[in-house]
Formats: sequence, structure tokens, C-alpha cells
Amino acid sequence: MAVYTEVNDADLARFLSHYDLGRVLALKGIAEGVENSNYFLHTERGNFILTLYEKRVAERDLPFFLGLMEHLAGHGLNCPQPVRNLDGEALGRIAGRPAALVTFLDGMWRRNPSVRCCASAGNALGKLHRAGAGFAGNRANTMGLEAWPVLFQESEPHADELQPGLAAEIAKELALLAQNWPRHLPRGIIHADLFPDNVLFLDDEVSGLIDFYFACTDQLAYDVAICLNAWCFEPDGSYNITKALAFLSAYEGIRRLTADEAEAFLVLARGAALRFTLTRLVDWLSVPANALVQPKDPREYIQKLRFHQQARSARELGLLR
Amino acid sequence: MAVYTEVNDADLARFLSHYDLGRVLALKGIAEGVENSNYFLHTERGNFILTLYEKRVAERDLPFFLGLMEHLAGHGLNCPQPVRNLDGEALGRIAGRPAALVTFLDGMWRRNPSVRCCASAGNALGKLHRAGAGFAGNRANTMGLEAWPVLFQESEPHADELQPGLAAEIAKELALLAQNWPRHLPRGIIHADLFPDNVLFLDDEVSGLIDFYFACTDQLAYDVAICLNAWCFEPDGSYNITKALAFLSAYEGIRRLTADEAEAFLVLARGAALRFTLTRLVDWLSVPANALVQPKDPREYIQKLRFHQQARSARELGLLR
Repeated sequence: MAVYTEVNDADLARFLSHYDLGRVLALKGIAEGVENSNYFLHTERGNFILTLYEKRVAERDLPFFLGLMEHLAGHGLNCPQPVRNLDGEALGRIAGRPAALVTFLDGMWRRNPSVRCCASAGNALGKLHRAGAGFAGNRANTMGLEAWPVLFQESEPHADELQPGLAAEIAKELALLAQNWPRHLPRGIIHADLFPDNVLFLDDEVSGLIDFYFACTDQLAYDVAICLNAWCFEPDGSYNITKALAFLSAYEGIRRLTADEAEAFLVLARGAALRFTLTRLVDWLSVPANALVQPKDPREYIQKLRFHQQARSARELGLLR
Repeated sequence: MAVYTEVNDADLARFLSHYDLGRVLALKGIAEGVENSNYFLHTERGNFILTLYEKRVAERDLPFFLGLMEHLAGHGLNCPQPVRNLDGEALGRIAGRPAALVTFLDGMWRRNPSVRCCASAGNALGKLHRAGAGFAGNRANTMGLEAWPVLFQESEPHADELQPGLAAEIAKELALLAQNWPRHLPRGIIHADLFPDNVLFLDDEVSGLIDFYFACTDQLAYDVAICLNAWCFEPDGSYNITKALAFLSAYEGIRRLTADEAEAFLVLARGAALRFTLTRLVDWLSVPANALVQPKDPREYIQKLRFHQQARSARELGLLR
């Protein structure tokens, strides 16, 4: 949690002179947010989030992300809507960083999402996939199958320090996934990071999806697998199939998974678990002990991977076919 | 900048069940704030700040601080107004910490306050001193004259690492101040930390004073001296007497300094500079290099102290008597 780049009043005044938002009433740095700096901005025209894109987001991808949010919001999805300035631009610069203003969404993320929350999240993911269908933009998944060996290379020399035997275990899984990964499932826009902290709720209903900065074009069912991993394991590591059934049933209320997707689902779930194992491993091994942002424990995802490895079919994940 | 204590939805729901604030619409941790954890809370009844008091604020002082804010707000000062719960209490507990809800104030603090800002701040300080007059509470200044030798003891062994000769320089100043410190000037409620980051502005007018967690009972003119140090030096270390004249003239528009106060003012300014030199020195020497909160540089205040040491009268600070 952090604000990496400070915005002073002169910076803000210069930036907002290109917008028609009235007088600034408040600006507060927000502590949440790992990748970028976010400010809560209150003006005479309403509440906004001002995001300064830090180095982990590629500047060339910003038009894709902002265009996608605009498209999705325009197609009825509750997500931050980029605010265009007087020149019609959604992307500007402030304090030396690329920056954008988006509408503020009410709602809170749920640290312990209920079964009803999971259903509402499944419904929202279905709507996201449906709304994304008409979007013209395209972005490869930079954290997809091809990236995993590279991430593994970075972390391999130290993986066994976390757990003896881990490097060999990951190498074996990588080989298996490379061989069995599905390549012809329905594709489209995926969020690719729809963890609970990126879904806002009012009571148990989703009020907004946020943080589209991993969004890309990939196989849709992979996004579902990422979500089951993120939403349906309890803090003690157990898989809550009631939550999975609720999520999947609500998702399929919007978009039914095909037979091919269902057949490949267990492999997708393993890949989704490995992807977050690997990125967390890289962060865990590279972040200094006293860093501003505490890295997440990769072991949580190793445990999820092992759960999927011992499952005999996607039925055990709640996919009843 | 940090949020030290995480608040989850269950904690929040339990806490807010004692309030009549309607449905929660948003909760965001705020990155600013060094002593406590602050959250922006948006409910159906409006915008609030939820503060969790961390270890640097003594719990026994909280009724004084909250009572003071309530008194000041009730006497027309723009400051956060504590919100009492259904039991009539302004102080509660959340996530294991003492906590309070106060009203949200619009406005932004100014990193480079203009002359007009300084005038408005001087006016606001005068109003604070006037509004505080009827407050029944009392709290000794724990960072006053008596505390300085203790702070010096903590930092003395390493002071010369920051600047050779610094320990001897501070010891000499301490002795001089102990001998010359005024003790019979008009007393009352002082803010004691009214730096620019604790004053909110809309355009060049003060819209609110915040952060009363150093407030105490002390000599009023000492508060004025703290402010001149905080508001009237430029980033290059030069003293901007135009800003000082504006601040003082606006302050005296509300409460005229007495002849005794004017006579003692240069000593007060030296003491005010030494106080922040000492606390910054303690923080500077004790905070680990990679800490969440970057300590402020004590040298800024050593430079201010030296400026006052070479001044021949308070006229050079803008006090025209």
C-alpha cells in the first residue's frame, strides 16, 4: 500500500486545467494499490480516482486499458469510466507520470466474501466477458503460458529456500502444462486479475469491478479458473465447493461454458495457480524485507496448485458436467 | 504515509452498528498521516474520516483531543467534528485500537502556501486561540521546554554524526532557553503543530484545521512562533518576511499580541525551532532506513534556529513593535 508519486497543488491545477470538473474540493492519496499511485479527488462535479501509472505498467498499454474501461462502462458494466479532457484525451501526464482520471465507484472489497458475494462476482465476470466481446482492442497476455518459464528462470535458483523440492516440482508442472494447455477455447477480453480486492460490493451485490491493468485477450475460461482460485479457497487452504458452485452457476447464467472448456478446466485451474505461484515467488525473492509493499506469500498458491493436481476431474472444483 | 491497522468489513460493521450513519458506500485507507491510521468513509449520511489511534498517541489524552475538537467546531472553527455514536460516545474501538469518527473537511493542504494563504492561516490561528478560550479541558505540553533536555539526551550521542559540533550547539541553546524562557505570557489552547499539512485550503482561504493530536495548554504566542517557522521559510531556507507580515497582521486582527509577548517573541521562535530540531533528530536517528514513513530532515530546523540566533529583534521576523 503506497503512494509512490506525490502530486502538489501546482501539478494538479495544471493537469485539471484541461478538464471541465469545476473547483477542486479535496485530494487524498489512497493507501491501497500496489502497482500505481491513486488519489481520491473530489471536485464540484463529483468524486474521481486520479491514477498515476508507475513503472510496472507499460505506457504503450495504457490506451488499451483506458479504451477497454470506456468500452465496458459504455456497455453497462460497472467499472471505472475514464474521464476525457477538453481535448478529448483520456490519458494525460501529471508530476512526470502518465495519468488518467476515472469515475469513483462506491463499494467495498470483501476480505471474506460470502457465498452470495461469490455468486454476484460470477455474474459480474460473465457480464465482463459478454461486454468485452465487441471491443476492438487487443493485448497479448504478458503473464500467460509463454511467460511462465521466464518467471521460473528468475526464481528457480532460490525457490528451494522457500520449500525444499519446490524448483523440481514447478519444473515438472511447467512441462505438463506446456504439453496439455488448451489452445482453441473461446477467446476474448479477460480481466486476468479479478481477485476479491478488485471487486467492490454494496451488501452482497457487486457494485463495481476495478483495476484492469492486467486485462488482455486470452481464453475466457482461464479467467474463470483464476477466479475460482481467488474466491473459493478458505483462509485455511480448504476448497469451498459451495462458493464455486455459486460462482459457476451465476457465470453460466450469463455465458455457458462449452464442453471443450469444461474438459480443459482442470488444466486451466492448475495453470492459473502456477501463474500466481510464479509471480509471487519472483516478488517474494526480490523484495527487500522492509519494503513499502509487503509481498504476498507464494505458498498460498503452491497449496492451491497441489489441490488441483490431486483432483481427478473438474467436478471436484464444482463444474458439474 | 501509511495505514498501520487494517479494518475489515466485519470490524467496520460492528463499529458502525453503534452509529446512525446509514449504509456504508465506501472505505479507503488514506496514505497521508504519520501518527495514526486514517480512512475515508462514505456513507448514506455523508463523508467522514475514521481514525484509528496508534501507539504514539496516549489513549488517556483522547477525550481531551475529541472534546477540544467538539468545542472548537461548536464555536465556529472549521475543524473535524467528532461524531457521537448512539450511546453518546465520541470514542470507540475498532480492530483492537481506540477509534473515532469525525466529519470530512473539504480542502487541500498547500505545499507552497502563498502570501494570501499565510494571511488566512494567521487568521485561522487567531480564531483557534479565541475559540479555545472557553474550553474546560487541560493538557500539559508534553513537547514543551521540560521535554527538550530528555529529547536531547536520546539524540546527543549521535547528533554529531549528522553535523559535527551539533551536540554542543544544542546544549548551549538549551541552557540559554532554560534561562530566558518566558513563563507568564497569556496561556490557552494551542495547536502546537499547525504546519501547512494540517491546514486545508479552498483557493487561498483556509477551509479547515486538522490534526489536533499535539494540542495542549501553553503560552499562546509560542503557537504563533511555531507557525512562523513552519509557514514563512522558503524551501531554500530564506525567511520570507512578506509572508510573516501577512500571517501576523491577520492573527493580530483577531487577537493582538501583548507587549510582553512581543518582547519574548524571538526567544519563543528559537524554542519553537529547537523543539522540532530535537524531535526530528530523535526520529532521524531511530528510524530504520527502509521505514514506511520517511523521517523529516532535522537540518531544516537547525537552519531556522540559526536564523533566529543571529536576529537582533523580533522586528526581523516581521513583528513590528
